[in-house]
Amino acid sequence: MRPQFVLFGDSITELSFKSGGWGASLTDTYSRKADILVRGYDGYTSRWALFLLHHIFPLTSSTPPVATTVFFGANDAALTGRYSERQHVPLDEYKENLRKIVRHLKECSPTMLIVLITPPPIDEEWQQQYAASPHGEKAMKLPERTNEVTGIYANGCVEVAKEFGVSSVNLWSKMQEIQGWQKKFLSDGLHLTPEGNRVVYEEVVKVLSGAWLSAPEMPADFPHHLEIDPENPAKVFQERCLL
Amino acid sequence: MRPQFVLFGDSITELSFKSGGWGASLTDTYSRKADILVRGYDGYTSRWALFLLHHIFPLTSSTPPVATTVFFGANDAALTGRYSERQHVPLDEYKENLRKIVRHLKECSPTMLIVLITPPPIDEEWQQQYAASPHGEKAMKLPERTNEVTGIYANGCVEVAKEFGVSSVNLWSKMQEIQGWQKKFLSDGLHLTPEGNRVVYEEVVKVLSGAWLSAPEMPADFPHHLEIDPENPAKVFQERCLL
Repeated sequence: MRPQFVLFGDSITELSFKSGGWGASLTDTYSRKADILVRGYDGYTSRWALFLLHHIFPLTSSTPPVATTVFFGANDAALTGRYSERQHVPLDEYKENLRKIVRHLKECSPTMLIVLITPPPIDEEWQQQYAASPHGEKAMKLPERTNEVTGIYANGCVEVAKEFGVSSVNLWSKMQEIQGWQKKFLSDGLHLTPEGNRVVYEEVVKVLSGAWLSAPEMPADFPHHLEIDPENPAKVFQERCLL
Repeated sequence: MRPQFVLFGDSITELSFKSGGWGASLTDTYSRKADILVRGYDGYTSRWALFLLHHIFPLTSSTPPVATTVFFGANDAALTGRYSERQHVPLDEYKENLRKIVRHLKECSPTMLIVLITPPPIDEEWQQQYAASPHGEKAMKLPERTNEVTGIYANGCVEVAKEFGVSSVNLWSKMQEIQGWQKKFLSDGLHLTPEGNRVVYEEVVKVLSGAWLSAPEMPADFPHHLEIDPENPAKVFQERCLL
């Protein structure tokens, strides 16, 4: 049984197997070492994620994931009084929901590597243009999300990770270190370009590698083809595949 | 428990989660509907694949995959008397190995959708340039593989699929329908460009959709976020998540 990593989150997770996506890159990096399962739910908030917890991470599982990324907050940080108001989750509740998720995952497996990822920054200019496209003239003149408010949620996420001593990736800060992050990393002011996906991939690999899940150090499931003796191929499989 | 598709094959399967890869595209298409597991083994032939069968597809599994792609032959068709001779598997044995794989998968699950994929065509000119790069002046002047021989293996693969009444994708023929296939679909005369990956993806989706595994018709695992009543989010989860 190969170790499993679960990517649990909203659309930024759901879209992570598109060309250049961070989920696909992780799968490639951990090829022959771990299975990457995507559990991304477009539009979901941390509040709605709670309804999925027992289904995706049953406490009775004999083979829980060895690592899980938890990537919510981009929708929670939607502002009240705008089109996306139905997704808004107050900051305190967002933090409490993350605590519930972390507690559940720890109950599921005390050794699971848990990685909380903050929402990415917001490019308000693009967010507004994007809102104008489906809603036309009726579009509100105000953005659905602001970078400042999303930053407060990002800090909340990092605080929860610290409370529990689990890992976190502060994507909101990390991305803003690079000049031109607005267009370089964001495709519509919120979702990620391939370069933005690359940042998530690199940061997640850094956390996994810094723990006990460095891909080069993990054993491959079966012998490399050059280890196979063409005259006696059974030998290396008998020696190595004792599963 | 979500249905699983397994991609079983050689390097063309192992590399299928690189940017634009066919495995990643399948994962994206079947997001929230099926899990795609990659079991690709660089350099492997159908002969060596037999050693993995019972490990990857244990007969005792209570949840066998609902679909499996079997994608060997590119290495089997390596010519004798060249650098890659150790990978050469005679045609008759290749066909017999495919039969053993299909029989095993059917024993694993009589309802499993099995898709045999033929090796892609070979661009001999690029294969030779590629061989020259690691071996320098010592490189043989003759190609490791020829398109003609690989075509014979591709036919063998299609014949085995017909014998068992399982699906097949004749990649060798399909790709050569397009002018300029040599550079358009192949990156080194053998492995696939993103466009080549696209052909595999489209052909596999065609087979899956033509059977009972059309992504748009398969149920999503959880409600779409617009189905959630923000005032009473529990309702739709109670109604729908009866797992």
